[in-house]
Amino acid sequence: MSNRGMLIILSGPSGSGKGTIIKRLLQERADTVLSVSATTRAPRPGELNNVHYYFKTRDEFEELIRRGALLEYAEYNGNYYGTPEEPIKEWLAQGKNVILEIEVQGAEKVMDHRSDLVSIFITIPSMQELERRLRDRGTETEDKIQGRLAVARRELARAFRYDYVVLNDEVEFAVERIHTIINAEKMRYSRMEKTVLEVLENA
Amino acid sequence: MSNRGMLIILSGPSGSGKGTIIKRLLQERADTVLSVSATTRAPRPGELNNVHYYFKTRDEFEELIRRGALLEYAEYNGNYYGTPEEPIKEWLAQGKNVILEIEVQGAEKVMDHRSDLVSIFITIPSMQELERRLRDRGTETEDKIQGRLAVARRELARAFRYDYVVLNDEVEFAVERIHTIINAEKMRYSRMEKTVLEVLENA
Repeated sequence: MSNRGMLIILSGPSGSGKGTIIKRLLQERADTVLSVSATTRAPRPGELNNVHYYFKTRDEFEELIRRGALLEYAEYNGNYYGTPEEPIKEWLAQGKNVILEIEVQGAEKVMDHRSDLVSIFITIPSMQELERRLRDRGTETEDKIQGRLAVARRELARAFRYDYVVLNDEVEFAVERIHTIINAEKMRYSRMEKTVLEVLENA
Repeated sequence: MSNRGMLIILSGPSGSGKGTIIKRLLQERADTVLSVSATTRAPRPGELNNVHYYFKTRDEFEELIRRGALLEYAEYNGNYYGTPEEPIKEWLAQGKNVILEIEVQGAEKVMDHRSDLVSIFITIPSMQELERRLRDRGTETEDKIQGRLAVARRELARAFRYDYVVLNDEVEFAVERIHTIINAEKMRYSRMEKTVLEVLENA
């Protein structure tokens, strides 16, 4: 691979379908991988270390924080979650695009510190549709649903921080739209500079 | 149409195939038009006023300059060439994307004054290939060919001013790449803001 990959931030409200979209996208693109988060929470059945998460003790996680080894981190319900930078660097150097699936606050922290990234916000057609999707899961209490809707509204109000907004009306369309964005971004001058300079140098 | 169109600058060396690419692109996209230049040169056989050019007298052209009605202009071989802003404004307001086919110096003048545009530089696979294409035309003297190659090298060296670089290895691929760029740019936050706000307002 001659070119560096690109770091892609992907956010969207709970229920926006980003998990499904990312799964399909990764099946369709050999050039793209999903970043793995570090966490101090206990593995759930079936979750593998280094695959689903880097499972860490609290001490190990705080050592990562001290070393500045995380792109961002946060604490929820007494557990740390964060994004280790080192594996991302390696993938990018190998020419792989790396997707960070990350909630809005974490995404903004990363955007504040890096400019070499492409950020995509997944939106839903309407709040009514989001509510329907959350109810269809059938696993959540009314309180939880109302909480998620309130968070979704706050997140949508931060969409302006992102480069692109992708509507998830149908999963296939949303996946196609993200392909389009990645393919266009590969034609940015910064990612085509080598090609241009080669034409000039062999003149 | 609910959304404004986008202004697209398209440049590339003589022989890069941009004319052919634009012709195909316009056939394939009803949402995109080509900007018409104003000039003081005489119409050639078959050239129509207001279609191929806005043909102007020197006095009329200088009046456009004085009124600030041109996005950019230049003088070549004793004739003025320029880009009237008014028709572009109208198309954009109607939701049409407008392509400015413009050489590098003119493009840079426009970029210096406007930030709401998408700029694309068409490149060729190699200078050898460009030379072959120029010779294949069979219409130009050796001097003219050498002159065009020198200009092409100077233009390639300014490609860094453009947002995107599109390789024209095959016309169909190049057209496809420009579709990809336009389709991705339509998902920029600024062009999707209305969608996001509608979701929020109907909540």
